[in-house]
Amino acid sequence: MRPNEALTKYIGALVDELSAVGVENVVISPGSRSTPISMLVNCNPSLNGRIAVDERGAGFFALGIAKSTKKPTALICTSGTAASNYYPAIAEAKESRIPLIVITADRPHELRDVGAPQTMNQLGMYGDFVKQFVELALPEANETMYQYVRTVINRVYKSTMTAPKGPVHLNVPLREPLVPNFEIEDLFQGGKRSEAMYTHTIQTNATLPLQFAKQLINKISTKQKGLLVCGTYTDEAALPKIVQLGEKLGFPIICDPLSNARSMKQISNHLIDSYDTFLRFEDVRTELEADLIIRFGAMPVSKPFTQYVKGTAGVEHYVVDEGDIWRDPTLQASSMISCSDTAFCEGLLELLIDRNVTTKEWLEKWIDINQQTKAILKEAEQSEELFEGKIVQLLEKHMPESSMLFVGNSMPIRDVDTFFSVNEKHIKIAGNRGVNGIDGTIATAFGMAASGENVYLLVGDLTFYHDMNSLVLSKLHNLPITVILINNNGGGIFSFLPQSKEEKHFEALFGTPLGIEFEYATRLFGGEHYKITNWDQFIELMEQNQKGLRVLELETNRQENYEMHQKIWSKVKEQLN
Amino acid sequence: MRPNEALTKYIGALVDELSAVGVENVVISPGSRSTPISMLVNCNPSLNGRIAVDERGAGFFALGIAKSTKKPTALICTSGTAASNYYPAIAEAKESRIPLIVITADRPHELRDVGAPQTMNQLGMYGDFVKQFVELALPEANETMYQYVRTVINRVYKSTMTAPKGPVHLNVPLREPLVPNFEIEDLFQGGKRSEAMYTHTIQTNATLPLQFAKQLINKISTKQKGLLVCGTYTDEAALPKIVQLGEKLGFPIICDPLSNARSMKQISNHLIDSYDTFLRFEDVRTELEADLIIRFGAMPVSKPFTQYVKGTAGVEHYVVDEGDIWRDPTLQASSMISCSDTAFCEGLLELLIDRNVTTKEWLEKWIDINQQTKAILKEAEQSEELFEGKIVQLLEKHMPESSMLFVGNSMPIRDVDTFFSVNEKHIKIAGNRGVNGIDGTIATAFGMAASGENVYLLVGDLTFYHDMNSLVLSKLHNLPITVILINNNGGGIFSFLPQSKEEKHFEALFGTPLGIEFEYATRLFGGEHYKITNWDQFIELMEQNQKGLRVLELETNRQENYEMHQKIWSKVKEQLN
Repeated sequence: MRPNEALTKYIGALVDELSAVGVENVVISPGSRSTPISMLVNCNPSLNGRIAVDERGAGFFALGIAKSTKKPTALICTSGTAASNYYPAIAEAKESRIPLIVITADRPHELRDVGAPQTMNQLGMYGDFVKQFVELALPEANETMYQYVRTVINRVYKSTMTAPKGPVHLNVPLREPLVPNFEIEDLFQGGKRSEAMYTHTIQTNATLPLQFAKQLINKISTKQKGLLVCGTYTDEAALPKIVQLGEKLGFPIICDPLSNARSMKQISNHLIDSYDTFLRFEDVRTELEADLIIRFGAMPVSKPFTQYVKGTAGVEHYVVDEGDIWRDPTLQASSMISCSDTAFCEGLLELLIDRNVTTKEWLEKWIDINQQTKAILKEAEQSEELFEGKIVQLLEKHMPESSMLFVGNSMPIRDVDTFFSVNEKHIKIAGNRGVNGIDGTIATAFGMAASGENVYLLVGDLTFYHDMNSLVLSKLHNLPITVILINNNGGGIFSFLPQSKEEKHFEALFGTPLGIEFEYATRLFGGEHYKITNWDQFIELMEQNQKGLRVLELETNRQENYEMHQKIWSKVKEQLN
Repeated sequence: MRPNEALTKYIGALVDELSAVGVENVVISPGSRSTPISMLVNCNPSLNGRIAVDERGAGFFALGIAKSTKKPTALICTSGTAASNYYPAIAEAKESRIPLIVITADRPHELRDVGAPQTMNQLGMYGDFVKQFVELALPEANETMYQYVRTVINRVYKSTMTAPKGPVHLNVPLREPLVPNFEIEDLFQGGKRSEAMYTHTIQTNATLPLQFAKQLINKISTKQKGLLVCGTYTDEAALPKIVQLGEKLGFPIICDPLSNARSMKQISNHLIDSYDTFLRFEDVRTELEADLIIRFGAMPVSKPFTQYVKGTAGVEHYVVDEGDIWRDPTLQASSMISCSDTAFCEGLLELLIDRNVTTKEWLEKWIDINQQTKAILKEAEQSEELFEGKIVQLLEKHMPESSMLFVGNSMPIRDVDTFFSVNEKHIKIAGNRGVNGIDGTIATAFGMAASGENVYLLVGDLTFYHDMNSLVLSKLHNLPITVILINNNGGGIFSFLPQSKEEKHFEALFGTPLGIEFEYATRLFGGEHYKITNWDQFIELMEQNQKGLRVLELETNRQENYEMHQKIWSKVKEQLN
C-alpha cells in the first residue's frame, strides 16, 4: 500500500461523491485537522471551494449560496470551537429549510475525552437543529469502505434535500499524518461505481388526492370572502400558479415581501402589498374579515396581519406546507395540508376550469383600501429628511431590473414590508426569516452575490456591526455589493415597542448606541464608503453600476423616524375613516 | 393583583437570588423577549450589568470575567439565534471549567414549534456542553413559585461551582407584556426567606486518604528521577504548596505558561521553563527520562513535552485532578487521583516531614540543560528585525509588575511557552486553552480587564480578525487595554506543520492572507493604533501607562519567522550535544 493511501482515497471518495450528488460549492475555514478534506476539495475541478476564516460568517455565507442556488452547500472546518461557530447559521438553515452539509473534522477516538488539545464532544453537537448526524468511520483502504463513505454522502444528501430541507452534520475523525499522498493518481476513484450501480436519490412530491380536492372546491364555492396568502418563503416556482388560482377564485392575494410575489413578472391586480399598514386598524380588520384563508409559505412578516388572522377564529383556514412542520403560530388553522405549493394549485386548478368562483365586491374592497393606503405611503417620497421609509421607496425606484434586495431583520424588513410595492422590475427580496436573527446578515447576502445575484443589502447599524467581519468576503471572493447602512446609532425597532416608555432603562438596554465610525469598517476591508447627506447623492450612487464593496451610510434619528411612521399611519387611518 | 405582578415578582426573585448566591456580574445582550430579566438586573444595586451587543463576544466577555473573579458570571440574551452565538464560549467554558450561568429568554409553550417569529427549540440546545439544563416554569404570582425560582438559581449555582466547574443553562419562557411593573415596591422580595431558612450550598473538597498517601510516599521513595508538572490551569492557590512539595522531593518542576508557576513570588531554582525547546531533541528526551511523573492541571501546551511523556511508557505517572474528567491525552497515566491540587500536596507534605527524598544529580541535570537552553533563547533579544520571539521577551521585560498577559492561541501561546521565562514580576499569563479556539480571544481578555486586571493582549492577525467586534467593549466599559498585534498576514502556525510543503494548496487553504488594514479596526472603535517599525518605539509605548484601547501592530514575515525559530532550535541542539 502506498503511504497514507487509506486517508487519501477514503477522503478522495468522500469529496468525489459530494460533487457526484450535485454539490458545487464548498465553504472552507482554515484549520489543521480538516487538511485532507480541504486539500482534496481544492484539487477537485468540479467543486468550487471558497475560503472564509470566521466560521460564523462561513456558515451564513454557505447558507446564502444554498438559498440562491437551491442546492446543498458543504461547509468544512477543523475540530473544536470552530464547529460551534456554525451553530447560528445551522439554526437559521433549519427553520428556513436550507440544505447544508456541515462537515467537521475531529480527533480520532483515542484522543477524545482525555483532554487532548482542540478537542470537544462533537457528536450530535447540533442537537435537533440538523436533520441527520453521521459520525464517519476512520479512513480504511478498501473498496467496501470507499463505497461506504460514498453511501454516507448519498444518505446525507437525500436527507438535506427532502422536504422540509435542512442542514445535516457529518463528523469526520482523522489521524495524523493529515496531508494526502498526491502521488496517488486515482485520488477520486475509490469506491466509484458504474452509472448502473450508482444510487440515485429520486425526489418525489405528494399530489393533492382528487377526492379531497373536490371536497375543497365544494367548500370554497360556499364562501364569499376568500383570501390567498403568499407567506414568507412561498415556493417561488409556484407563484404563477398561485396567482392563477387567486384570479380564478377572485380572491385577493396577500404578498409577503419574502414570498417574492411582489416581484412577479405578470402583474395581477389581485396582489395586495399595503396590508401591513391598513390592517393596523381594528375597523379595517373587521371590515375585511375573511371567511376562508389559504396560506402558502410561513406566516408573513407583518404583525398586523398576524393580529388580523388571530381575529378570524372559526373561519376555514388552510395551511399548505410540503414539510412535516406545524407552521401556524396563530393556532387558527382548520386544515394543515401536506403538499407542495405547486401540487396544491395544480390539483385545484384542474377542477376549477368550469367552476370559476367570483366575489367581485370583496376583491374590489381590498384593492380599493390597498390603493388608498399606498397613495398615502407614497407621499413619504416627498420627505426632504433622511426618512427610513423613503430609503426603501428609492431602492424600489433605483435598483436595477432583476437585482436582489437582501434585507436585515428588525426595522429594515418591516420598512420593506410597508414601503416596497408590487413592481414590474423583478427585484427579488431575500432575508433570514427562519429565526429572524440579526446575525450573519452580511455573509448571507454575500453568499447570494457569490451565486451570481446582483445584491443590494439594506441593514441597520447593529446588524451591520454584528456581522462586520463578513465584509472581508467581498474582497476575498471579488463580490461587488452595495450596502445601504441605516445608522440610527442603536436598536431602532425598540422605539416601536412598550420598552421605549421605560426611560430609565431604555438607552442602556435597548437603544444601545455603539457610537462607532462605520467608515473605518468599510476602509478596513478595502471598500468605498459614502456618507449620504441628501437624496440626490443617494440616487446618483444607486444608479452607478456595482463595483467592489460600497457602503452608503445614511444617518437617521430613531425618535424622528418613529414619529414619521406614526404620522403616516395616522394619516392612513384618517383617510380610511 | 397588580398588573403584571406575576412576571415582575417572579423574575424579581430570580434576579435577587442571583445576587444572593454570589453572582456579581451579568453580561446582557439587547433583545425584546429578555426585557424583564435585563430590566430587573439593571435596577438591582447588587448586580453589575454590562452590555455586549454581539452575543458571541458577550459569551467570551462573561467567560473572561468569571476566569478572573473565579465566580459565576451570568449571561442574558433574547430568544432565537442569539442563544446559539453563545455556543463557542460555552464549549470553552466547559473544557476550561469556568462557571457561567447562561440565561436565555424564550417564547412561551404555545408559541413553540408552530413557526412563531424568532423561535427555535432552545431546550437542551447546548447538549452536554452544559452541566445542567433547566427549563423554568412560566411566571406565576405566588410564594411557592417565587421560592421555586430561587431554588432553581441555588441548584444551578451549586452545579456551576462544583468541580469540575462549568457552564449551566437556564431557559426562561416569557409571555407578553414583557415590561415589569415598576410601581411594585417589593420587586425583589418574592419568596425571600429568612437567613435561617436560606439554602446555603456548602462546597467541600476530597482529601487524600492517609493510607493512600503513605503508599504513595513509599513508592516515591524508591524513585530516582521524579518530575512535578504544573500543567495548564493548575490551581493558582496550590502553587506555593506544589513548589514546596517539589523542593522537599528534590524534583524539577515543569512550569506551563498557563499554570502561572512562571510568575510565582517565591522563586525556586526547581522551576523549569525552557523544556518546550530542549525536549524537541530525542537525545535530550532520552537523557532526561523520568521514572515518576506527578502532574497537576491539564497537559501542558508544549508538543515536545507531550512527546516526551509518550516516551515514558511503564513509568509511574500520577494525574491529580479534582474533576471527574479523564485528562490524559497521552494514555500513559498509571493513577488518576481525584483530589484537589492543594489537598494532594497537603496530604503528602504532612508525611514528608522526616522523609525528604533527594536526587540531586537528576535535578541539576534539568537545571543545567534548562539554563544552557535559556542562554541561547536569550540571544534572540539581539535581533534587529521584528522577530516574534523577541516580542515575547520584550513583553516580559517591559510589562508592569503584576499585570496580565492574555495570549492568543496558535503561535502566540507557543512563543510565550518558548520565550517567556520564570520571573519575579508576578505577571499572570492567561489564555483560552480549554478547546484552544482562535475565537473570542479579545472579548475574554477584556472580561479579565473588566475584573480589574491590567491586561496586555498578544494575538496574531487571524485571531484579532476573528473577534474584532469585541474591541467595542473597551469603549463601552471603559477598559484600558494594550493589544500587541502580530500581523504576519495569515495563519503563521501552519508554516510549522507538514501542510506547508504542499505549495499548491498552502497559501489558499492555510496561509489565508486577508490583507486587511488593521489600523482602521482600531479607529473604528476609537482606539489608538501604532505601526511598530523598530524596537525602541515598541519599548517606549510599552512603558507608557495603559489608557483606553491601544493597538501596537508589528508586521512580521511568516517564512522568516519560521526560519528564525529553526535557527534558534538548531543552535540549542548543537549546544546540548
